Amino acid sequence: MHRNMYDTDVTVWSPEGRLLQVEYAMESVKQGSACVGLRSSNYAVIGALKRSVNEMASHQKKIMEIDHHMGVAIAGLTADARSLAKWMRNECLNHKYVYGQPMPSKRLCDDLADKHQRTTQTYVRRPYGVGLLVAAYDEATGPHLFQTCPSGNIYEYYATAIGARSQSAKTYLEKHYETFPESEKDDLIMHALRSLTGCVQGDGELTKENGSIAIVGKDQKFILIENDDLTQYLDRLEVEGGAAEGGDGDAMQE
Amino acid sequence: MHRNMYDTDVTVWSPEGRLLQVEYAMESVKQGSACVGLRSSNYAVIGALKRSVNEMASHQKKIMEIDHHMGVAIAGLTADARSLAKWMRNECLNHKYVYGQPMPSKRLCDDLADKHQRTTQTYVRRPYGVGLLVAAYDEATGPHLFQTCPSGNIYEYYATAIGARSQSAKTYLEKHYETFPESEKDDLIMHALRSLTGCVQGDGELTKENGSIAIVGKDQKFILIENDDLTQYLDRLEVEGGAAEGGDGDAMQE
Amino acid sequence: MHRNMYDTDVTVWSPEGRLLQVEYAMESVKQGSACVGLRSSNYAVIGALKRSVNEMASHQKKIMEIDHHMGVAIAGLTADARSLAKWMRNECLNHKYVYGQPMPSKRLCDDLADKHQRTTQTYVRRPYGVGLLVAAYDEATGPHLFQTCPSGNIYEYYATAIGARSQSAKTYLEKHYETFPESEKDDLIMHALRSLTGCVQGDGELTKENGSIAIVGKDQKFILIENDDLTQYLDRLEVEGGAAEGGDGDAMQE
Amino acid sequence: MHRNMYDTDVTVWSPEGRLLQVEYAMESVKQGSACVGLRSSNYAVIGALKRSVNEMASHQKKIMEIDHHMGVAIAGLTADARSLAKWMRNECLNHKYVYGQPMPSKRLCDDLADKHQRTTQTYVRRPYGVGLLVAAYDEATGPHLFQTCPSGNIYEYYATAIGARSQSAKTYLEKHYETFPESEKDDLIMHALRSLTGCVQGDGELTKENGSIAIVGKDQKFILIENDDLTQYLDRLEVEGGAAEGGDGDAMQE
Amino acid sequence: MHRNMYDTDVTVWSPEGRLLQVEYAMESVKQGSACVGLRSSNYAVIGALKRSVNEMASHQKKIMEIDHHMGVAIAGLTADARSLAKWMRNECLNHKYVYGQPMPSKRLCDDLADKHQRTTQTYVRRPYGVGLLVAAYDEATGPHLFQTCPSGNIYEYYATAIGARSQSAKTYLEKHYETFPESEKDDLIMHALRSLTGCVQGDGELTKENGSIAIVGKDQKFILIENDDLTQYLDRLEVEGGAAEGGDGDAMQE
Amino acid sequence: MHRNMYDTDVTVWSPEGRLLQVEYAMESVKQGSACVGLRSSNYAVIGALKRSVNEMASHQKKIMEIDHHMGVAIAGLTADARSLAKWMRNECLNHKYVYGQPMPSKRLCDDLADKHQRTTQTYVRRPYGVGLLVAAYDEATGPHLFQTCPSGNIYEYYATAIGARSQSAKTYLEKHYETFPESEKDDLIMHALRSLTGCVQGDGELTKENGSIAIVGKDQKFILIENDDLTQYLDRLEVEGGAAEGGDGDAMQE
Amino acid sequence: MHRNMYDTDVTVWSPEGRLLQVEYAMESVKQGSACVGLRSSNYAVIGALKRSVNEMASHQKKIMEIDHHMGVAIAGLTADARSLAKWMRNECLNHKYVYGQPMPSKRLCDDLADKHQRTTQTYVRRPYGVGLLVAAYDEATGPHLFQTCPSGNIYEYYATAIGARSQSAKTYLEKHYETFPESEKDDLIMHALRSLTGCVQGDGELTKENGSIAIVGKDQKFILIENDDLTQYLDRLEVEGGAAEGGDGDAMQE
Repeated sequence: MHRNMYDTDVTVWSPEGRLLQVEYAMESVKQGSACVGLRSSNYAVIGALKRSVNEMASHQKKIMEIDHHMGVAIAGLTADARSLAKWMRNECLNHKYVYGQPMPSKRLCDDLADKHQRTTQTYVRRPYGVGLLVAAYDEATGPHLFQTCPSGNIYEYYATAIGARSQSAKTYLEKHYETFPESEKDDLIMHALRSLTGCVQGDGELTKENGSIAIVGKDQKFILIENDDLTQYLDRLEVEGGAAEGGDGDAMQE
Repeated sequence: MHRNMYDTDVTVWSPEGRLLQVEYAMESVKQGSACVGLRSSNYAVIGALKRSVNEMASHQKKIMEIDHHMGVAIAGLTADARSLAKWMRNECLNHKYVYGQPMPSKRLCDDLADKHQRTTQTYVRRPYGVGLLVAAYDEATGPHLFQTCPSGNIYEYYATAIGARSQSAKTYLEKHYETFPESEKDDLIMHALRSLTGCVQGDGELTKENGSIAIVGKDQKFILIENDDLTQYLDRLEVEGGAAEGGDGDAMQE
Repeated sequence: MHRNMYDTDVTVWSPEGRLLQVEYAMESVKQGSACVGLRSSNYAVIGALKRSVNEMASHQKKIMEIDHHMGVAIAGLTADARSLAKWMRNECLNHKYVYGQPMPSKRLCDDLADKHQRTTQTYVRRPYGVGLLVAAYDEATGPHLFQTCPSGNIYEYYATAIGARSQSAKTYLEKHYETFPESEKDDLIMHALRSLTGCVQGDGELTKENGSIAIVGKDQKFILIENDDLTQYLDRLEVEGGAAEGGDGDAMQE
Repeated sequence: MHRNMYDTDVTVWSPEGRLLQVEYAMESVKQGSACVGLRSSNYAVIGALKRSVNEMASHQKKIMEIDHHMGVAIAGLTADARSLAKWMRNECLNHKYVYGQPMPSKRLCDDLADKHQRTTQTYVRRPYGVGLLVAAYDEATGPHLFQTCPSGNIYEYYATAIGARSQSAKTYLEKHYETFPESEKDDLIMHALRSLTGCVQGDGELTKENGSIAIVGKDQKFILIENDDLTQYLDRLEVEGGAAEGGDGDAMQE
Repeated sequence: MHRNMYDTDVTVWSPEGRLLQVEYAMESVKQGSACVGLRSSNYAVIGALKRSVNEMASHQKKIMEIDHHMGVAIAGLTADARSLAKWMRNECLNHKYVYGQPMPSKRLCDDLADKHQRTTQTYVRRPYGVGLLVAAYDEATGPHLFQTCPSGNIYEYYATAIGARSQSAKTYLEKHYETFPESEKDDLIMHALRSLTGCVQGDGELTKENGSIAIVGKDQKFILIENDDLTQYLDRLEVEGGAAEGGDGDAMQE
Repeated sequence: MHRNMYDTDVTVWSPEGRLLQVEYAMESVKQGSACVGLRSSNYAVIGALKRSVNEMASHQKKIMEIDHHMGVAIAGLTADARSLAKWMRNECLNHKYVYGQPMPSKRLCDDLADKHQRTTQTYVRRPYGVGLLVAAYDEATGPHLFQTCPSGNIYEYYATAIGARSQSAKTYLEKHYETFPESEKDDLIMHALRSLTGCVQGDGELTKENGSIAIVGKDQKFILIENDDLTQYLDRLEVEGGAAEGGDGDAMQE
Repeated sequence: MHRNMYDTDVTVWSPEGRLLQVEYAMESVKQGSACVGLRSSNYAVIGALKRSVNEMASHQKKIMEIDHHMGVAIAGLTADARSLAKWMRNECLNHKYVYGQPMPSKRLCDDLADKHQRTTQTYVRRPYGVGLLVAAYDEATGPHLFQTCPSGNIYEYYATAIGARSQSAKTYLEKHYETFPESEKDDLIMHALRSLTGCVQGDGELTKENGSIAIVGKDQKFILIENDDLTQYLDRLEVEGGAAEGGDGDAMQE
């Protein structure tokens, strides 16, 4: 009836050496709306699809600022993500207060991953049900893009995507990521938008309502580009799309 | 026999990546009597249907004042709501004591959402079984309308409705919310009342006994409008209703 | 076999969004012997049926004094009630000690309700198995009548009844409560007794042994009227009863 | 197979609003050997049947002194009773040390009942498996007789009996208790012995080995009457018994 | 299949008002090798059968000294007994240090019984699986013999026996215990040995290897009589046995 | 249906005296990608296969530096390993701070093993799901190679391999380890690479992308050799391989 | 299906008065490779069979030094043993620091046994899965040989053996132990080796790789005899073996 008896407690190993509760929590990430991330030599960009709760809702955040040099895009449980973002903001504030300079992104993300790992080894808490894409720019080491998982794993990427239908975005990014290091700010943003187009549900389109982009980098504090600010980029996308439709016939897979 | 084995512990993930106990707690909100909320550029209004325990009961609160600039309407477990409202009042008092000015509503609601989130990640407590509509007016940022959920999610709305039969109210609000920013106080109250009419159970009517409205805004401290204070608005509603019945034939859906 | 799997832990939600353990605790109240409460503009009266443990028992309390201005009638687990009454007495003493005046009844009852609510949200304690009718008189706001529930709900009433066969008393009270505000002390007491008559088990009668009344109000400290003190009122009741039987034929439902 | 699923945890309510674990603990009292208690205007007497562990055992206590003005008779788990009696002794010592006078019996018994109640509301301890009959004499209020239950209930009696076959004793006491207030010390002791005779198992008789009586009262510190001290009373009982057999034919029920 | 569902948790009452886990722990005592105890007006003697783990084991203690005036014989789990004996030794040391005189044996045994009782009322520990016979001599009250049980019960005896096949020893002791008060030291020891003979397993005999005796009393510090020290007594026993076999035909039951 | 009832709790022994949860955790190690370790008289080398998450990931570490004289290769849960490595780094820092010299590797590994053992004896945590190969060079005792297990076992080796398909590597190492003590740095590295070749999944090859080597030793601080740094060694391997294919026909088993 | 319901929790008694989890833990000892211990008037010797993990492992300890005057041989879970040995070493160091002389072995072993006992009485930890043979030499009392068990039992022996196939060693030791008191150092070592020969698995032989001996005694600090140091003794054994085979035909059982 039930699949097995090893999957209801995060501290129980299955006979195959798996932690099934952690794997189930990762399902939650796969069902979140898609996020993408990518970076050039000077900038890191994250993008996300916003799900429309309701047209009357003023905003439902998928991208959150952590500090002037860092932000996150989320897929999964929003409440978990908000709680983690709050913790990250505090860590950044404390670091700045003590050392007089921004928190190095690698260090914060390692601590964040350990915070995830601990929930997988004790029965008092459940694993977090959210994946984060962290875009950051460190004065010393340049732009970074990290992905965290409910398992406590953390990866650094040149470009990646998470969430529902993110495979389409990954395919796009893999095709183009070798050209990213030299890309300008606006090119990165366009790549982010193009990779997101394939992640929209059903016959939906990427619009200024459901799209959301953020950038951080050299001489560029973290900024969020949404709604009307997004229009100019979507216009370019549409032009391309039209061209693409006529041009190479399979724009969605681009 | 039972649906599955992942739904009796809030810290257990289902194989599909869901937290079923949180979803069940949200059912409790759906069964509470309906509440609506809406805002203009200067005011936020919340309204609620009171369930009649008994004609001898002097009052059963569905709307509670938190501070001069904030109040909540509730759907779900009243005891949970009262406990949360008490906590919110204390937070407001402490903030005013420390900083000499009212608690910013966004900050309080974020803390409130985190309070909800924590109950979803530990086995020692159950998720709260109540949804809140928070109406607030901040000197700096104007009127706000927030909705909290048992999951720890929080949304900001121009207008929304929760609780039993709230779909009818949502339909009304979606049809009209674009006109709200310019509305006067009394117009907002009338919109609230009209949206509530469709949420009354069975053949019931909105009356001064079961209706309850509150408003807060620019130069307007939080006030509750109930019983006889509500009569003038209900009278206008009745006039409209009569007109409506003759006029466009489907007043309830208005 | 068993009804469902969601009903043995107070921190578990059923799929329908209910807390079944709380509902079961409320059954305990429904099985307690009946209590009634009512108030006029100046007085609050509570009455209760005492169950006879044994004719040799000197007294089994159903009504307890909390302070000079407050008392409770109980239905459900006596031991739970005694423990709560003790806590209420301490709260009253502390308040008087700190502020030099009696505890406002509304404030105490709100704290009492929160004490109930907390037992419904943690697995370490069970919900209380008792309902209280609190009669109080505050210098500032006059007489009050509150009812608390195992769920943590609290209601203020003009008149109400709880416990076994209390529907009969409610019916009586609903018929007459509009005349209560102007009633004199003795009239209130007579109303309480009349409402109790229908709650006596089987063919039993209301007697000075099983009846118990208390009153508190303006210039009237809390007093308990039992045994011989009750006789004069029971005599009046009997006279009425005879009259009633001849008069309107259905005295018990009165 | 098993009766239901609500009866293995003291903090779980059955759907009928009962706490079955508490009811099971009360069975333990019903199986203890019988105890009786009664009081006149000036004295309180408790009596108990001692079960014979073994003729080589020097004594197995069923009645314990708490203080000069108080003692208990027990039915149920002896180890629980001893632990409670130790606590009561300490309370009395502390009270005497702080206030310079004996602990009022009512106050101690209320605290004792609360100690019982707490074990019924938390999962970390089981309910006590013992019932106590407390005989006490307070300078201010005269003699008292209390009974405590595993449920945390407490009753004050003129006369009562608990334990195995105690119904026979209750029947005797109910028949005679109205004459107790005027009784002399020795008469009370004889009533206690007579009520115990019907509780002896099988064809057994009340003897100086299995009987045990204690008295406390006005100008009478608590004393235990056992073994040879009991002989004179048993002799009187035998004389009566012979008379009774000839006299009214049903001595055992007397 | 299983006997019932009330027997795996020490804090769960069975519907018959029993604590089955405590009863199971008492089985552990019944399976320990036998111990006997007896006392005269001036001495207390304990004896025990040692089980042979292995002829190469130098000694496996069944009797332990607690203080100069006290010792214990054990039946059941040795590890539990050793842990309890260590606690008793510490209590004696502390008492001597604080009061300058030996710990009264009754007081220590009451505390010991409470230590047992507490394990029967909380789920965090199991009941002890050992019974103790405590032999002690108090300057003020003379010799004592106590028996403790896993249930927390404690009994004082003139003579008794516990453990496997102890019924035979009890029968012997009951036949002779009335003569013990006047017995000399060596007579008591002989009684102890005779009572032990019937407890030896199978066709085994009481030998200097498996027998163990200890005595404490007036002007007699606790001493252990084992191995060669025991020979003289065993020789007397053999002589008797021979005589007995010829004499009264049923030496084993003597 | 399920295999047995002793395998879901780490603190439960199976009737055969096994701790099944610990054994299941060891499965997690067996499924990690392979690691090898070996040492000469002066150097210790560890090597690992990196699994390709994604070509866009910048690096996924399988070998981590702990201190200048120590590093680890991991097989199993990366998040557990990272958390353990962080702890090891802190221990090294603290030791250096207090004693002014590097932490002896044997001492750290013993503490590490105890850290593992503790998770196998308490129910609050699960066993770690990772195996470590620790390569270290102590000034006093030369190079060391330790392996830790989820069970808390620790082994010192001349050469070994763990993880998926590690048997192939073990076979290679057993064949050659007797020649290691005299090997030069580069020879050791070549042995590590050759042993890894058989562990690559399917028809895959050892490449600069999936291979990873580290060395520590006399006058040689810990260094990681990856990517382009690895090319020279892989080139030598290919030359050999070609030779081998022609030479002895079964290069993979070498 | 399952054997019974009393065997998964160490704090649950079976109806027969057994603690099954403790018994299962003892199985773990029976499956460890064999250890032997024996002592003369001046020396204590322990010996053990090492299981070969792998020929490349440098050493897998079965005998550990605790202090200059004490060492242990282990059978069962190595990680548990290492953790216990560490604790024993600390106890010895603390004792030497405080009292200026070595820890008496009896005292340490009693404390060790209590440490075992505590794990059998609480649900938070599992019983240790290891048996220890402790060889020690105390200045005051000479050589000692103790055996500890998971149950918390402790035995002192002249000679004994534990672990897989240890019955063969026991048989040898029982045959010869009466001659041990007078034996010289080397004779004891030879007895230890001879007793171990029968414990080797299958057709295996006792070799310098799998054998391990340690001795401590008068003017003899604890030393471990392994590998090449063991050769001279194994040579003597082989000579004997040859002789034996010709001599009394059943050398293995000697």
